[in-house]
Amino acid sequence: PIDGPRLWDSLAEMAKIGATAKGGSCRLALSDEDKAGRDLFVSWCEAAGCTVTVDRIGNIFARRRGRDDSLPPVVMGSHLDTQPTGGRFDGVFGVLAALEVVRSLNDRGVETLHPIEVAVWTNEEGSRFSPPMMGSGVVTGVFTLEEILDKVAQDGARLGDELVRTGYAGEAPVDHPMHAYLEAHIEQGPVLEVEGKEIGIVTGAQGQRWYEVTVTGVEAHAGPTPMRLRRDALVAASAMVQAVQRVGLETAGDACATVGILDVHPHSRNVIPGRVFFTVDLRHPDADTLADMDRRFRAAVAAIAEQHGVGAEIADFWHFPPTPFARPLVDRVREAASGFGFSHRDIVSGAGHDAVYVAGKVPTAMIFIPCEDGISHNEVENIAPADGARGAAVLFETLVATAGR
Amino acid sequence: PIDGPRLWDSLAEMAKIGATAKGGSCRLALSDEDKAGRDLFVSWCEAAGCTVTVDRIGNIFARRRGRDDSLPPVVMGSHLDTQPTGGRFDGVFGVLAALEVVRSLNDRGVETLHPIEVAVWTNEEGSRFSPPMMGSGVVTGVFTLEEILDKVAQDGARLGDELVRTGYAGEAPVDHPMHAYLEAHIEQGPVLEVEGKEIGIVTGAQGQRWYEVTVTGVEAHAGPTPMRLRRDALVAASAMVQAVQRVGLETAGDACATVGILDVHPHSRNVIPGRVFFTVDLRHPDADTLADMDRRFRAAVAAIAEQHGVGAEIADFWHFPPTPFARPLVDRVREAASGFGFSHRDIVSGAGHDAVYVAGKVPTAMIFIPCEDGISHNEVENIAPADGARGAAVLFETLVATAGR
Ligand SMILES: NC(=O)NCCC(=O)O
Ligand SMILES: NC(=O)NCCC(=O)O
Repeated sequence: PIDGPRLWDSLAEMAKIGATAKGGSCRLALSDEDKAGRDLFVSWCEAAGCTVTVDRIGNIFARRRGRDDSLPPVVMGSHLDTQPTGGRFDGVFGVLAALEVVRSLNDRGVETLHPIEVAVWTNEEGSRFSPPMMGSGVVTGVFTLEEILDKVAQDGARLGDELVRTGYAGEAPVDHPMHAYLEAHIEQGPVLEVEGKEIGIVTGAQGQRWYEVTVTGVEAHAGPTPMRLRRDALVAASAMVQAVQRVGLETAGDACATVGILDVHPHSRNVIPGRVFFTVDLRHPDADTLADMDRRFRAAVAAIAEQHGVGAEIADFWHFPPTPFARPLVDRVREAASGFGFSHRDIVSGAGHDAVYVAGKVPTAMIFIPCEDGISHNEVENIAPADGARGAAVLFETLVATAGR
Repeated sequence: PIDGPRLWDSLAEMAKIGATAKGGSCRLALSDEDKAGRDLFVSWCEAAGCTVTVDRIGNIFARRRGRDDSLPPVVMGSHLDTQPTGGRFDGVFGVLAALEVVRSLNDRGVETLHPIEVAVWTNEEGSRFSPPMMGSGVVTGVFTLEEILDKVAQDGARLGDELVRTGYAGEAPVDHPMHAYLEAHIEQGPVLEVEGKEIGIVTGAQGQRWYEVTVTGVEAHAGPTPMRLRRDALVAASAMVQAVQRVGLETAGDACATVGILDVHPHSRNVIPGRVFFTVDLRHPDADTLADMDRRFRAAVAAIAEQHGVGAEIADFWHFPPTPFARPLVDRVREAASGFGFSHRDIVSGAGHDAVYVAGKVPTAMIFIPCEDGISHNEVENIAPADGARGAAVLFETLVATAGR
């Protein structure tokens, strides 16, 4: 029901903005590149006859009228921001597949009962500004608007100021009404590809706990300070990185444990590090297991700090529990995939998505497509055009079934 | 023979430039603060009747005429640059003790046969610009002037440009003639304090090997990427940090092994690190043992890389062999200490100093004084005023004995 080549062309066009050397994209949230990507999206939506509004946290909603336009919209969407060395599909695919659904509805002159909208959520990645999923988090009341506007980036910029600077500090209130929410996304892992499945029916997302750890030792000279007298914050922190890895490896099921940022102070070749800051990201589909990972992680950090004679502070940074999606809507996605004869399997999302927050407010489902070698958050991230077209087709069918004729 | 309170006042005055919150100093090489420290030093030397010249690498030489001014000078000195979170005495003590010797010679109307000079060497610390000991290295032919002028700082500045900007791109040629070289310095380690000795008779410096290691894994998403499929550059690098630590701990004698800098790429909370860069600093007083540490370090890095399925490149960054000082001059320092009745012991320097490079060219010796808790390269670095005065007195006696009356 959709135009695969048109979708593919739009993906390629968007990927030119912030294109990186190795074929990826860098459009950090509310950077100049993110603004350019948003502007392109808005121009496409207007050309498709949509009315575009922007809310106070910078989320964009492109609306196609419904037969009863007083009904709440069925919203499809994802995000346009990327990781520093991000790919061309993470987030973008969900946004442009949704736009393709709108364009196809236009081509066929199909009216829907509910209005429909394509959403671009602000700062899903959580890289430049952290935590992730800020735009959807504000709309669903997980965060207050004020706390998010005051977030400061790694580069020192304030989020509220960057919204104004890029022209996306909108006027619309953040309590946006929605009838249901659908998000198409690349899997970002290897499961569908390994099993040769064309569509992932996402039943929910695994839980996440993010932390910040600060290790405090004693700065001293790397030459005349005997090894046994040192309190080297980096030696201790590196043992903690190993321990985080073990928490991931030694947990049953699909556990993940990652240290993504680690900063050394004072950052001089001949100074024993006096302070190390690092981030930890623990994930598991089961709440009790995630709680157990949390306990083991904390115990390991405390034991290593003790053993090395350093201080270690763990701050809770962000978390969400394992989140199931709406059973009837998930069933509808499965029926759409089956209807097309696409091979599929149920799958739990390893990543957080705006859908996770939206699921707390309105019925929500997600559609996964395979990505090459399961690689994401990497410039080489890739998909097969046919997989993209299949995902958009399933989105089309589910949307029409949900919005009504 | 010297004026202890005057020396202490000058140390306090200099420490005001680039003073840090915790009582230390930050005068990174060729920064605005380093320039201000140099300017203050030059004004003091001129007030003491010295003639000041600056060479093409920015070394400052303040000269007091000798009875036979055609003879090569006996040079005393050290450096005024500091670590990012440096102390008030590392380097500065050697420079201002030398200035105090000149002032005391003036007070007493003592003439010396050889002219004498106080040297401030450019960028001894090797923190902002690396490697260390650049000014003395250029003067002694270890480095070419051109290669050093082209060094680029962590902050992107070119050394030659910073010399011009700060007004220390001098005209004097870099092959400065010297009769002998004397450097007073804080020990920067705990030995003298623990043994209750007032003066360290430095017989030489341990050898150093510095490296840069780049670990290359595969960036991927911290959520949907199973632990067993990851090639996490930081997990591998943290095992390497542990291995460097073991090389230090498991070597007989006073071995040191330190990772001072470690940078993670792409530096995002939810991205498995694809690349890690870190620096390694290995030290030992014995050349064969240092060579053995080098072998064990390389083998450990290779084995860990193999085990984690990541790449690891080791680049040699800088090194110098264990360096003995000139026996007769060292004996003269010992005689001076004994003459004053100061308790003393022979000691090998754990740190590199400008004296190490100068020792390759002219007879060289160093005088150590204790520092509090053996702590250096730390804002809390401290000395007792009486220890400073003792060190300056030994420097005075050794200088006069070497420069002749
Ligand atoms: N898809 C995605 O990268 N979301 C950000 C939150 C997460 O790391 O799971
Ligand atoms: N004294 C000092 O910090 N010198 C720099 C070279 C080294 O780290 O040993």
